[in-house]
Amino acid sequence: MISKKMEGLVRNNSVIRQMFEEGQRMAQEFGAENVYDFSLGNPNVPAPEKVKESIIRLASEENPLKLHGYMSNAGFPEVRRRIADSLNKRFGTAFDENNIMMTVGAAGGLNCALRAILNPGDEVLSFVPYFLEYRNYVNNFDGKLVEVGTTPETFMPDLADLERKIGPKTRALIINNPNNPTGVVYSEEVIRAVSGILEKAQEKYGSEIFIISDEPYRELVYSDKEVPFITKYYKNTLVGYSYSKSLSLPGERIGYLVVPYEAAGYEELFAAVTIANRVMGFVNAPSLMQLVIGDCVDEKADIDFYRKNRDMIYDALTSYGFTCVKPEGAFYLFLKSPIEDEREFVAQAKEEHILLVPGSSFSCKGYVRLAYCVSHEMISRSLPAFKRLAEKLL
Amino acid sequence: MISKKMEGLVRNNSVIRQMFEEGQRMAQEFGAENVYDFSLGNPNVPAPEKVKESIIRLASEENPLKLHGYMSNAGFPEVRRRIADSLNKRFGTAFDENNIMMTVGAAGGLNCALRAILNPGDEVLSFVPYFLEYRNYVNNFDGKLVEVGTTPETFMPDLADLERKIGPKTRALIINNPNNPTGVVYSEEVIRAVSGILEKAQEKYGSEIFIISDEPYRELVYSDKEVPFITKYYKNTLVGYSYSKSLSLPGERIGYLVVPYEAAGYEELFAAVTIANRVMGFVNAPSLMQLVIGDCVDEKADIDFYRKNRDMIYDALTSYGFTCVKPEGAFYLFLKSPIEDEREFVAQAKEEHILLVPGSSFSCKGYVRLAYCVSHEMISRSLPAFKRLAEKLL
Repeated sequence: MISKKMEGLVRNNSVIRQMFEEGQRMAQEFGAENVYDFSLGNPNVPAPEKVKESIIRLASEENPLKLHGYMSNAGFPEVRRRIADSLNKRFGTAFDENNIMMTVGAAGGLNCALRAILNPGDEVLSFVPYFLEYRNYVNNFDGKLVEVGTTPETFMPDLADLERKIGPKTRALIINNPNNPTGVVYSEEVIRAVSGILEKAQEKYGSEIFIISDEPYRELVYSDKEVPFITKYYKNTLVGYSYSKSLSLPGERIGYLVVPYEAAGYEELFAAVTIANRVMGFVNAPSLMQLVIGDCVDEKADIDFYRKNRDMIYDALTSYGFTCVKPEGAFYLFLKSPIEDEREFVAQAKEEHILLVPGSSFSCKGYVRLAYCVSHEMISRSLPAFKRLAEKLL
Repeated sequence: MISKKMEGLVRNNSVIRQMFEEGQRMAQEFGAENVYDFSLGNPNVPAPEKVKESIIRLASEENPLKLHGYMSNAGFPEVRRRIADSLNKRFGTAFDENNIMMTVGAAGGLNCALRAILNPGDEVLSFVPYFLEYRNYVNNFDGKLVEVGTTPETFMPDLADLERKIGPKTRALIINNPNNPTGVVYSEEVIRAVSGILEKAQEKYGSEIFIISDEPYRELVYSDKEVPFITKYYKNTLVGYSYSKSLSLPGERIGYLVVPYEAAGYEELFAAVTIANRVMGFVNAPSLMQLVIGDCVDEKADIDFYRKNRDMIYDALTSYGFTCVKPEGAFYLFLKSPIEDEREFVAQAKEEHILLVPGSSFSCKGYVRLAYCVSHEMISRSLPAFKRLAEKLL
């Protein structure tokens, strides 16, 4: 009954989303306080007070025809200008409103970017492990996702493998920094090395290869590492951003896409992403939320909340004998499974009412992902269950 | 630099949207009061007061983690239930929350529906004239839009042509009722006749053919004609709805898709549209606006405002000698061009500072579309300019 492209997707519906629904079911059965749901990146820190104030102010004072009306498909120019100014101040860039398109979350922005540049059969690279939706996004436009290895334990790009995997059909590399699911942050040095390899490949193949930098976790960094702003290192960079995590607005679907003037064919490219926004049915990012972002462009949710969670769970799990790279950013921890088949580990954790996502959902078997964007209390309550798991399996 | 699929789109960027930007430019040059912009369906009636109250109440009282958080990709169950209840009360249907998916406007819903059912090469029918984005939506999934004729002057479906155009590859028929750009309303009789033809075709070809009913203008009807709720007449119906017009929220991108239990393969189909919502990057309809809709499900913007506009402009234009079918719904009037090439008429109207959209943008040359969702005052001010045009061209 349904299209062939959807058949596989319906069969293998997102494990993460299924876990989310399973968590809700278990919470009803056992009581919410007895279920330790680490499955979904749904922030547990409320949006900043200023978001609330801005919504109330706009609803009370702004002309509803503007507040809820159509605007250019790229979004309100004044909001885009504020975002450009904020980026310029923070990163020393020189953007203006013509470099910013407001998007329906980062997912909307990434799809517009891919629609704008991909022809069927084009290849898009991504470092393993990666957010598995990338595969679906690339598949939306009949592209092919090509996995690039990372070094064991540290999850840093395997540069030799990157060189090997680039070919004449390579059209883009998706980078997710800080990374979901590992929590690692790529340093300036890593970005320079990756950019250098892409530059050489562009020359070799006479092609334009884009970096699509997916940055919903940019503000969530717990070390003193800076997350490099990649447009400064590599011209053909498109940056997808979302306020889902930094302002705790995941349900609102609000973000932006950066298209730098330096990108090859900038004018055509900006027109293409804007038209993609329209024809794919987004039309524009939600209008009220765009104006809220204009008010709150330099606000941040309470990042220290996540740092405390990271420390609590990392310290406890490693003290029980579990192994994982210490997350420097995002709100995920990528735990080595104590048994070979990590889906079996996920099943055993579920018996302890702990919900985890198997690494195979990120194309990386033998690991599981914990999303620690949960309450401190839930982490505390979950620790005895983790300890029992460690005693049983390690 | 950009993908082949985008090249043509960038070249022929939406005439309607270009006109919108041109209108904003002219307003700056000549003063907003001297430009008569009838180009875009951007409502001029503010959202009902209850929308504002609901936004303020939710921002003030609702837990921000729920208000701005993720929910199931299909949307908040309680909002979907309220919509189902409201439809049941109005149309005698028997929907529940499992028949409703919240969408990023009707455009988002239509794209999810098409993604769920279309294989490359499948054909999708639509009656001429039609909203030209349908062609882009179908093309997103490598389907082919096939135009079906309507009877001259009345723009009612040409049933014989419908029968001729259905073939083994026909997968869907998009119906837009009330119609953009003509403002006509298809009666129960018309819908029964169309449904009968599709039923027979399904039997003949052993296929399932869907009606995708695009209904953003459902509440905007000025005659006593009822707009039939098509699921009652034809099982394989998917209904796309938007609150853009009925609640004057076009910028907010909020609507829903109805998937009736009676549709072939309902379970797979509902899973497919929900997953399509996720993988195409919508993820979910904006969360705050979903909850606002839950509060305002039976509210309506001031429809009489548009009725008054319709009467003003229809009466004036016909008294000047222009010809058009009297619109019964939506907020468009489809005027016969007094000169053969309607783009020349559009150009001449522009010299009078009147912005119109050529019928070729709806695959129907020789006509122009006026969107009369503007202020009464603008219509009054524009009438002398229309009169001069009539005197010059008729």
